Amino acid sequence: MADAVSPVGHTSVRVRYAETDQQGIAHHAHYFVWMELGRTALLRDLGFPYDRVEAEGLVFTVVEASCRFVGAARYDEEVEIETRVGAVRSRTAAFDTTLRVAGRPIARGSVTLAALDSRRRPGRVPTPLVAALRGAARS
Amino acid sequence: MADAVSPVGHTSVRVRYAETDQQGIAHHAHYFVWMELGRTALLRDLGFPYDRVEAEGLVFTVVEASCRFVGAARYDEEVEIETRVGAVRSRTAAFDTTLRVAGRPIARGSVTLAALDSRRRPGRVPTPLVAALRGAARS
Amino acid sequence: MADAVSPVGHTSVRVRYAETDQQGIAHHAHYFVWMELGRTALLRDLGFPYDRVEAEGLVFTVVEASCRFVGAARYDEEVEIETRVGAVRSRTAAFDTTLRVAGRPIARGSVTLAALDSRRRPGRVPTPLVAALRGAARS
Amino acid sequence: MADAVSPVGHTSVRVRYAETDQQGIAHHAHYFVWMELGRTALLRDLGFPYDRVEAEGLVFTVVEASCRFVGAARYDEEVEIETRVGAVRSRTAAFDTTLRVAGRPIARGSVTLAALDSRRRPGRVPTPLVAALRGAARS
Repeated sequence: MADAVSPVGHTSVRVRYAETDQQGIAHHAHYFVWMELGRTALLRDLGFPYDRVEAEGLVFTVVEASCRFVGAARYDEEVEIETRVGAVRSRTAAFDTTLRVAGRPIARGSVTLAALDSRRRPGRVPTPLVAALRGAARS
Repeated sequence: MADAVSPVGHTSVRVRYAETDQQGIAHHAHYFVWMELGRTALLRDLGFPYDRVEAEGLVFTVVEASCRFVGAARYDEEVEIETRVGAVRSRTAAFDTTLRVAGRPIARGSVTLAALDSRRRPGRVPTPLVAALRGAARS
Repeated sequence: MADAVSPVGHTSVRVRYAETDQQGIAHHAHYFVWMELGRTALLRDLGFPYDRVEAEGLVFTVVEASCRFVGAARYDEEVEIETRVGAVRSRTAAFDTTLRVAGRPIARGSVTLAALDSRRRPGRVPTPLVAALRGAARS
Repeated sequence: MADAVSPVGHTSVRVRYAETDQQGIAHHAHYFVWMELGRTALLRDLGFPYDRVEAEGLVFTVVEASCRFVGAARYDEEVEIETRVGAVRSRTAAFDTTLRVAGRPIARGSVTLAALDSRRRPGRVPTPLVAALRGAARS
């Protein structure tokens, strides 16, 4: 549908003191951890909590990650994490994340996960999860 | 010179136990911390230790970061960090990093820094540092 | 009052993937970060959000920290953080924290903070905060 | 021998930018990671690299950790880590660590590890390792 809003995962996190650096803002490496929290929340919302994925002998590994930082987050500020599904293939799935503080974007990132089996050899994203992710991406 | 090898910063780091995750490999967010260690070493080699940069009232903030993960690093493995200077402009400087374990690439990343003054307004990369970085990039 | 329950700060945190280590449990160093989240929540509940403390030119620095680990926390488990005020002096304040997963204690820790002025010289815990902390400890 | 110097593990680490917090010093939680680096180095020196311990189906888990912070470490400062063996029992081993910057102590900590088998049930520290640790503690 033309005007449909894509289903997205929403969660939020408060900046921890330990996440600040001597510039007085959250260190950029933590943004990748926060984006992971967004994926965790999205997968849970889709009915595929990630711990259950791993319990079935599959792991997702990050094969590509990028982020543009357009603002900063300070101690104790609440960072809103909005995650959308990007390209979904048989072996990989991409996720696009926007991070905001008080509604104002501070970063936009994209992370691609690849499925691996228990020996870290290329695996396949389970068919039901592919379907759920594509459904989320399409709508 | 056509066949010159670019001067690069070399350093290395051993994977800490705290940096592993339940997949038994270093978590991807730490790669961005390691790339920062590479930039720190390169700046020191060029004669511009970063603490002195900040002492002069300037900070560098990360405005863009990306990484392709092509391998994994395990606990206590030594990760070799090779950093090259990329595009250098009046307000930004880019750095390209290759991470290797036992000579085998595990990741290639790129990070762009922007200069900010003490109030976090856009600043300029100091001219001597621009010159040093461009010299390193050109050679 | 003999049977009064001490007012405590309550908050909780879900174990992040990045916080697990290759033993498949949260790495112990993160427990100290979680205890800090408990203090942050307690200070906010008492009306002294820590960012405002720092805005007044004072910082609290950790001078002593200890923790007994009696259980483990796994990825995505919710860790309940219960924080009580311990000994409060003119320059230091102690906090006792119990961490639980599903009601079962996984760790008990104690952290002592000291007040420092903006030059990191010994300072005094502001009198209203001493009163609030002692009130919380007594009750 | 009365005047013998205990064999100790020595290693060092430079404070990473990501380890600083908005007070401009290394956040206290990282000290526990640094103490772990000291234990890793000591075990390696004693001929029992920890990855080999785990390869034999045993893990060490931290059951108690404490630290007194008497100074601070700033970005890029080198922190010297000196680790001594404390009490060694059949199931646990304690390690005492002093952290210094430029020879000046910044923290003293103590960590007790317990041996667990692959199902995280109480195990025994391997006899040769007990002997090596006791030898190191005694001397």
